[in-house]
Amino acid sequence: MDISVKETARQLERAQDVVIVAHKSPDGDTLGSSFALLYALQALGKRARVECSDPFPKKYEYFLKGYQPEGFEERFVVSVDVADEKLFGPGTGHYAGKADLCIDHHQTNTDYARCRCLDYGKAATAQLMYFIFREMGAAVTPLIADCLFTGITTDTGCFRYTNVTAETHEVAARLIGLGAQAGEINRIMFETKSKSRIAVERMVMESLEYDFSGRCAMICISKDILTRSGASEDELEGVSAMPRQIEGVMAGVTLSEREDGYKVSLRTSEQIDAAEVCALLGGGGHARAAGCFISGDLNSAKAAMRQALAGFLPA
Amino acid sequence: MDISVKETARQLERAQDVVIVAHKSPDGDTLGSSFALLYALQALGKRARVECSDPFPKKYEYFLKGYQPEGFEERFVVSVDVADEKLFGPGTGHYAGKADLCIDHHQTNTDYARCRCLDYGKAATAQLMYFIFREMGAAVTPLIADCLFTGITTDTGCFRYTNVTAETHEVAARLIGLGAQAGEINRIMFETKSKSRIAVERMVMESLEYDFSGRCAMICISKDILTRSGASEDELEGVSAMPRQIEGVMAGVTLSEREDGYKVSLRTSEQIDAAEVCALLGGGGHARAAGCFISGDLNSAKAAMRQALAGFLPA
Ligand SMILES: [Mn+2]
Ligand SMILES: [Mn+2]
Repeated sequence: MDISVKETARQLERAQDVVIVAHKSPDGDTLGSSFALLYALQALGKRARVECSDPFPKKYEYFLKGYQPEGFEERFVVSVDVADEKLFGPGTGHYAGKADLCIDHHQTNTDYARCRCLDYGKAATAQLMYFIFREMGAAVTPLIADCLFTGITTDTGCFRYTNVTAETHEVAARLIGLGAQAGEINRIMFETKSKSRIAVERMVMESLEYDFSGRCAMICISKDILTRSGASEDELEGVSAMPRQIEGVMAGVTLSEREDGYKVSLRTSEQIDAAEVCALLGGGGHARAAGCFISGDLNSAKAAMRQALAGFLPA
Repeated sequence: MDISVKETARQLERAQDVVIVAHKSPDGDTLGSSFALLYALQALGKRARVECSDPFPKKYEYFLKGYQPEGFEERFVVSVDVADEKLFGPGTGHYAGKADLCIDHHQTNTDYARCRCLDYGKAATAQLMYFIFREMGAAVTPLIADCLFTGITTDTGCFRYTNVTAETHEVAARLIGLGAQAGEINRIMFETKSKSRIAVERMVMESLEYDFSGRCAMICISKDILTRSGASEDELEGVSAMPRQIEGVMAGVTLSEREDGYKVSLRTSEQIDAAEVCALLGGGGHARAAGCFISGDLNSAKAAMRQALAGFLPA
């Protein structure tokens, strides 16, 4: 059942012994929003804890300081920024079917909780959470402001994506006014690259090839690159967006080596429907970002992608 | 003489036949703020034109559409985002000593105009201009909102730098509400890289070397790289910030090849005073960013930088 921000606030005020579930492979929004809610509920004298299937990445430690999960039998389960129960992950899978409330902003939300507060006009769950707190009259401390600012800035690529609205900036302004360390948070989230990420970028860029008179750019993330760079999966975030960002490129292709072939990620400009292209190779996705799998070696994978793109791009 | 936003608004209301001077090598803030002012003055029925020593980069064309400089004898000269008359450049140098008003946000402003409206608490001149317009009761059209948003987003690295305050986000929110195409502007300014910029990054990253157990990262922009990539000077913007952005790096060094040696740019973390290091080699600058010149070949330039850094970094 879909409920309003007001009703959500009332439910949270009544809730006792709350377990807050973040999604697996946690990002800044699911953690920022979850911990903001944790601290707000604790300030109301409630017992609460955050659960997540995966460990918390070290870069979020500035708002995790002193966090110790409390042991208690849960009486209210709220999932935060979790579009689908499948995203609970193995460590919190036992909460599937038990969520009393889901607070989210994903258009793809599968409506798995007893009640749902969903607003996909919000750039981040943290942006929605701000209005829930306002409805609750909950004090937004500097720590809570840091949590919410983290959610907003990470889900918007530092206010760069098209999901940003006037309201997003308005909430950011309020949070900075309430003590969010915006400059420092952005530095941690966006300024620093690990040495292995730098190594990956360098090797991947060496594989860059242009086709179709520069309208297509292709890169390859080989297993060898991963081994040599020492990069982990989460350090690859954003790499597949790189080829599309080159001037004049309408189709950006990233080929990631797997056991028996290549996982393909395709990003396109608005002239080309990425899902249509990938459908030709048994894949699918969205209009601007889609994927497929091509078995065989690198050259045949490249040839198959070129062939699929040929009908969409001038030679 | 320093004057308030209110007095600035009154002067602009009284001004006739206005020449607006932007700084040479124009950026998004000087052009965005200048054209916002141009359109606001024209809406009041005044004659006005923007002058700049260098041509307007193509990426700003969305707010330059239909602009034709008007020919008239100037009766009021206002410089916008220009910290020093030296920055007028050769094409507008004849306005030196003639500025009636300077609107700026640079702490280094040299107070060269008859009147000065300076606020270095603003992240961009565009942010200051918004308040001047409000004081004038000038209508902020969608075109003017695009101009001002461009100034703010470019001078803050898309709301990432520490010059961003709550007010910066507040003004951004208002401008989006007034029709600024934030997503599209950010895409043009930050998402797209030219093919020659991509080529430069790839070649420069191949030159990357770590020293002092990874606490120093050095890159080199050789003349050969510039020739092979075909990149122009303004496409090098931000390259020298790259080495410092690597995790654990306290000193990021960029060596740019010149006729008889290397121009060195040093960026540091807060533990190291970049100006102090560069002073050892006859250079200078700020605590986090400084520079010097080292004559000789690449290896001797690297050796000299390592020696200068040795007293500041653990081996
Ligand atoms: Mn989210
Ligand atoms: Mn400026």
